[in-house]
Amino acid sequence: MIKVAIVGATGYGGQELIKLLLRHPKVEITQLVSQSNKNKSIGEAFPYFKNLIDQKFVSLDLARISKKADLVFLSLPHKSAMNIAGKLLKKGMRVIDFSADFRLKNKSLYKLWYGIDHPNDDLLASAIYGLPEFYRSKIKKATLIANPGCYPTAALLSILPALNEGLINSEDIIIDAKTGASGAGRMPSDALHFPECNESITAYRVGTHQHIPEIEQELSFFAKRDVEAVFMPHLIPMNRGILSTSYCKLKAGISLKEMRAFYAEFYKKEPFVRVLKKNMFPQTRNVSGLNFCDIGIHVDENSQRLIVVSAIDNLMKGAAGQAVQNMNIMYGIKETMGLI
Amino acid sequence: MIKVAIVGATGYGGQELIKLLLRHPKVEITQLVSQSNKNKSIGEAFPYFKNLIDQKFVSLDLARISKKADLVFLSLPHKSAMNIAGKLLKKGMRVIDFSADFRLKNKSLYKLWYGIDHPNDDLLASAIYGLPEFYRSKIKKATLIANPGCYPTAALLSILPALNEGLINSEDIIIDAKTGASGAGRMPSDALHFPECNESITAYRVGTHQHIPEIEQELSFFAKRDVEAVFMPHLIPMNRGILSTSYCKLKAGISLKEMRAFYAEFYKKEPFVRVLKKNMFPQTRNVSGLNFCDIGIHVDENSQRLIVVSAIDNLMKGAAGQAVQNMNIMYGIKETMGLI
Amino acid sequence: MIKVAIVGATGYGGQELIKLLLRHPKVEITQLVSQSNKNKSIGEAFPYFKNLIDQKFVSLDLARISKKADLVFLSLPHKSAMNIAGKLLKKGMRVIDFSADFRLKNKSLYKLWYGIDHPNDDLLASAIYGLPEFYRSKIKKATLIANPGCYPTAALLSILPALNEGLINSEDIIIDAKTGASGAGRMPSDALHFPECNESITAYRVGTHQHIPEIEQELSFFAKRDVEAVFMPHLIPMNRGILSTSYCKLKAGISLKEMRAFYAEFYKKEPFVRVLKKNMFPQTRNVSGLNFCDIGIHVDENSQRLIVVSAIDNLMKGAAGQAVQNMNIMYGIKETMGLI
Amino acid sequence: MIKVAIVGATGYGGQELIKLLLRHPKVEITQLVSQSNKNKSIGEAFPYFKNLIDQKFVSLDLARISKKADLVFLSLPHKSAMNIAGKLLKKGMRVIDFSADFRLKNKSLYKLWYGIDHPNDDLLASAIYGLPEFYRSKIKKATLIANPGCYPTAALLSILPALNEGLINSEDIIIDAKTGASGAGRMPSDALHFPECNESITAYRVGTHQHIPEIEQELSFFAKRDVEAVFMPHLIPMNRGILSTSYCKLKAGISLKEMRAFYAEFYKKEPFVRVLKKNMFPQTRNVSGLNFCDIGIHVDENSQRLIVVSAIDNLMKGAAGQAVQNMNIMYGIKETMGLI
Repeated sequence: MIKVAIVGATGYGGQELIKLLLRHPKVEITQLVSQSNKNKSIGEAFPYFKNLIDQKFVSLDLARISKKADLVFLSLPHKSAMNIAGKLLKKGMRVIDFSADFRLKNKSLYKLWYGIDHPNDDLLASAIYGLPEFYRSKIKKATLIANPGCYPTAALLSILPALNEGLINSEDIIIDAKTGASGAGRMPSDALHFPECNESITAYRVGTHQHIPEIEQELSFFAKRDVEAVFMPHLIPMNRGILSTSYCKLKAGISLKEMRAFYAEFYKKEPFVRVLKKNMFPQTRNVSGLNFCDIGIHVDENSQRLIVVSAIDNLMKGAAGQAVQNMNIMYGIKETMGLI
Repeated sequence: MIKVAIVGATGYGGQELIKLLLRHPKVEITQLVSQSNKNKSIGEAFPYFKNLIDQKFVSLDLARISKKADLVFLSLPHKSAMNIAGKLLKKGMRVIDFSADFRLKNKSLYKLWYGIDHPNDDLLASAIYGLPEFYRSKIKKATLIANPGCYPTAALLSILPALNEGLINSEDIIIDAKTGASGAGRMPSDALHFPECNESITAYRVGTHQHIPEIEQELSFFAKRDVEAVFMPHLIPMNRGILSTSYCKLKAGISLKEMRAFYAEFYKKEPFVRVLKKNMFPQTRNVSGLNFCDIGIHVDENSQRLIVVSAIDNLMKGAAGQAVQNMNIMYGIKETMGLI
Repeated sequence: MIKVAIVGATGYGGQELIKLLLRHPKVEITQLVSQSNKNKSIGEAFPYFKNLIDQKFVSLDLARISKKADLVFLSLPHKSAMNIAGKLLKKGMRVIDFSADFRLKNKSLYKLWYGIDHPNDDLLASAIYGLPEFYRSKIKKATLIANPGCYPTAALLSILPALNEGLINSEDIIIDAKTGASGAGRMPSDALHFPECNESITAYRVGTHQHIPEIEQELSFFAKRDVEAVFMPHLIPMNRGILSTSYCKLKAGISLKEMRAFYAEFYKKEPFVRVLKKNMFPQTRNVSGLNFCDIGIHVDENSQRLIVVSAIDNLMKGAAGQAVQNMNIMYGIKETMGLI
Repeated sequence: MIKVAIVGATGYGGQELIKLLLRHPKVEITQLVSQSNKNKSIGEAFPYFKNLIDQKFVSLDLARISKKADLVFLSLPHKSAMNIAGKLLKKGMRVIDFSADFRLKNKSLYKLWYGIDHPNDDLLASAIYGLPEFYRSKIKKATLIANPGCYPTAALLSILPALNEGLINSEDIIIDAKTGASGAGRMPSDALHFPECNESITAYRVGTHQHIPEIEQELSFFAKRDVEAVFMPHLIPMNRGILSTSYCKLKAGISLKEMRAFYAEFYKKEPFVRVLKKNMFPQTRNVSGLNFCDIGIHVDENSQRLIVVSAIDNLMKGAAGQAVQNMNIMYGIKETMGLI
């Protein structure tokens, strides 16, 4: 059994992780850490969990965690994980971090987008970006996983196959993404107040969304040159799900049929990517509660555009599900365990 | 008073039109035509209207209409309007048609997209495309208005200013549009069944949506060359509203500030287009029930992309509201009457 | 023209009121008072209103208001209106108050439910409860209107006809009410955070909702004895609308047909109450944006229960619409003006 | 391993059942029967299931089923199950039926509510009503389970403890119930068309809902006299969940505290009923995807009313979850297996 602690167990990502781990046959949750809910039972704080798990939240105590757990999931706000992760690693634990703190390899980029110097930039090099479809062999040996953002997961699984194969122009990539409201977290705000958010769509954080450098870093790595993409996030009145529509310029003539076959072949052995058949496009409801990324392919022949539509559940393949997938890979157990 | 008949008064567009005309100080509704609801009072068929209007639906009788009305709104399914419009015009009436039957100037294009020969293609030349911001002077003299589609309205108001001014490359236009469910009409279907549509987003009719030729026709007209655009419609779990995000390639360096100023200037005198300030982007809830098109401007400097986000209410500026605006222009009354 | 000031113009009720007054042919809005938005234009603070009204919010200045306006709508949180109303009345103005501050006639009841002594209890006697269907003649002469709460409006219009006529037992009344989220106001909270509120129903403030004494006061007045009712409010994932289902014990045998006829007759001349036909029950969407209260009647013969289902738009007949209706009555103009 | 066939596997209840059984460690699904999807793979017909289960739908063949399966779940429309169940039982199989065909013990009642003579009324006596909290010992030995309706499950779990204990008056029971849209099934209709159902609440099938006789039968059985209850169903714009608010008249004075203690004690050993603490009331989101019934208790002292609010997921404890719970009991395995 893998003994697991969850630090910051009360956000939407953390709650989803608990649900998944409770069903996982090889995992035992030994510590639920939450400063704000300390000493409360989880069933009391979140009635959903009553009778599902009988534990109390505890405060953060690194010594205790290191005795009780082998693996720690950090589900903290950005900037909070960076200090804790290093200490846990030094105690010999493995860490899967949900935040953006270890996703960017370049510390000056981190400062640019997050406004502070990264205090543990030595860890940036060793942290592995936990997108299994592209980093599986590194994940197997990793001790620190930077679990990808929800938007980047949907966008990268759409674009990387073609980019990596040199089928598209790396200078002309547009990502139009739509997310459900749980992606914004559990903190009430004007924008997420029900009567404001319901029955409305909007574009938000235009040109400033913190997932931009993460997407560009990975696109650049696989393109082997600096890539700057257009990324436009939109907020949709539903709880879960991301639909990402990517527009890429084809380098040379390639038919829709060939392109679909290429994606199908590329992901053939991937347990969590489903390339849809002709004329089918993803619906977020078909991945709701699941760790799949569904992908639909279109080629607009006039404009020579490849259009890739992908759907994920932002709390599953976009957060907790992918974290469990990473854990399964790190521990050498079946990658789909507890997920399918 | 303008005496008005509405033929096909029971769809969402028709119902919205009735609501607007009831408030319009210069209009009297004299005939509500609906074959399926013949002899029923509208309050009986649609309880919303009880006590608002006390009329019975009647069957279609051209002679009677021509006696009772000066202006006929046709709110019929595509392909049904084409036969009736010509007969009404011959009787000296004016017609505003909600369908696509008179929007395409090219009859072979009509056949290609709608599958039948257009029986009244002589009318195609005289029909005026009812987008007041670009065809106001022709609308003033028109007897037959082809009221624009909802998606085309949102897209064209976003793109035409820059295209017409030669600021963007006409060969590289991408429109990613998101619509609420009322855009699909009042007929129940699997896709619009509540538990299927709610809590989900999807792309649909990819590459085959019937609004593509309408958008391309108008883009081509203003670009003075054949334009083919990428158009991707998405279905959103809400009742009303379209958000359209257009990605255009700039021809030459132009800053965000200049571009926003250009759009603000372009639409300065338009009563129904609101260009938003810096860092503001449209939300469909801010145009709900209104005839406005809200526009937000972004320039991505890296990729030299102009990104225009527009929001309309698909039943207002995207259908009934725009029809009333066209009527006001045709009759020489204040353009905002009954709408603001 | 009635010159109107709105104090506290930025809540959902206040915003709805502005929309209605902008369309009202006999009203001029002369002052929009909002401490928090002082000096901002309303179109800047709430982009919905851009191009609809060009005014700036001002701070509260009683002298200025009394010069500029004849009538003041107070749309403030409970406990804030009480101090201002008296001062306005002394300056000879009329006041329509949206809060609960003048609804309860009994000051000890006010203290019990709101936790403070009422500082202007002398006004409680002269304030008129603004439910036109039952207090029209008093409203005509009133200078201070306590605009009813949304739940009480839906419940009282359902129950008072039968209670007043002595058809039901005043000791056995149950009101099961369901409200959309805008009823809870514009302040973000956990309960109204989109992912918490969406896709869920709950009962709330069980036994403690502040509308209970208001409902009981009016039931008691018309029953001519102290009435205590069971009131259960529920929160529904939608923006607008209240559906109220009232269960009353019949005093003597009366058939469904007779009961429906009684309600139809009772409300026959009321412009804003629509009693539905046999087998029809209200849907909140049919009153959305309208000032109607729709009523459906059922009699369960086994249990001798009268069941009355009513639907209102909580922001219209439940707040701003009813306020305008009261204004029309106070000023002797057509009761439906600006509302139908 | 229990070999399971599902007949009528394509409704919402059937799909939910497949999801549950795929996770169940003691179950093998051997046959998915669907006439309309015959020969299609389930992943093709319902993309949700792609990669989760690799099977084709087959037509109904009793001989084949009896070879391949021990247990058959019938998830067919009402009136379709009755003919098949008997044949399966004769072949020695066990049957869990989702429909209403075996819920009513009285065949004349069946005819009254469903309009036809029951052709297999001999089975009515042996069919066990599958509400484990009240029929567990009979379920253990059953071969034919009538899986309860969703509304009856929520209502009965609320009322039966107090009724069975004689704490409430059996002649005065009111059930006000609210359901999400999936309860109405997968067939498109006007009422469930997204723009009609969204942003609206309504009462429906007032006095005629087919769950009335089922509720009354069980209330009568435990009250040991004929009980007629008032049952009012309401449709809510969300996918899943039922909230049921029951109003019962107390026979003698009993405090809220005592009543809550009584319910807590009554359900203490039940794995799927959670009685909430003081001042807490159920939210359907807390049972979404779970087999729990959450119960909140209130006593209105003025009116001497017991008010019980219960929440279930209509597809889980209201259908598929309860069916799996029944299966677990029938096969003597842990009751929560595959469900927690």
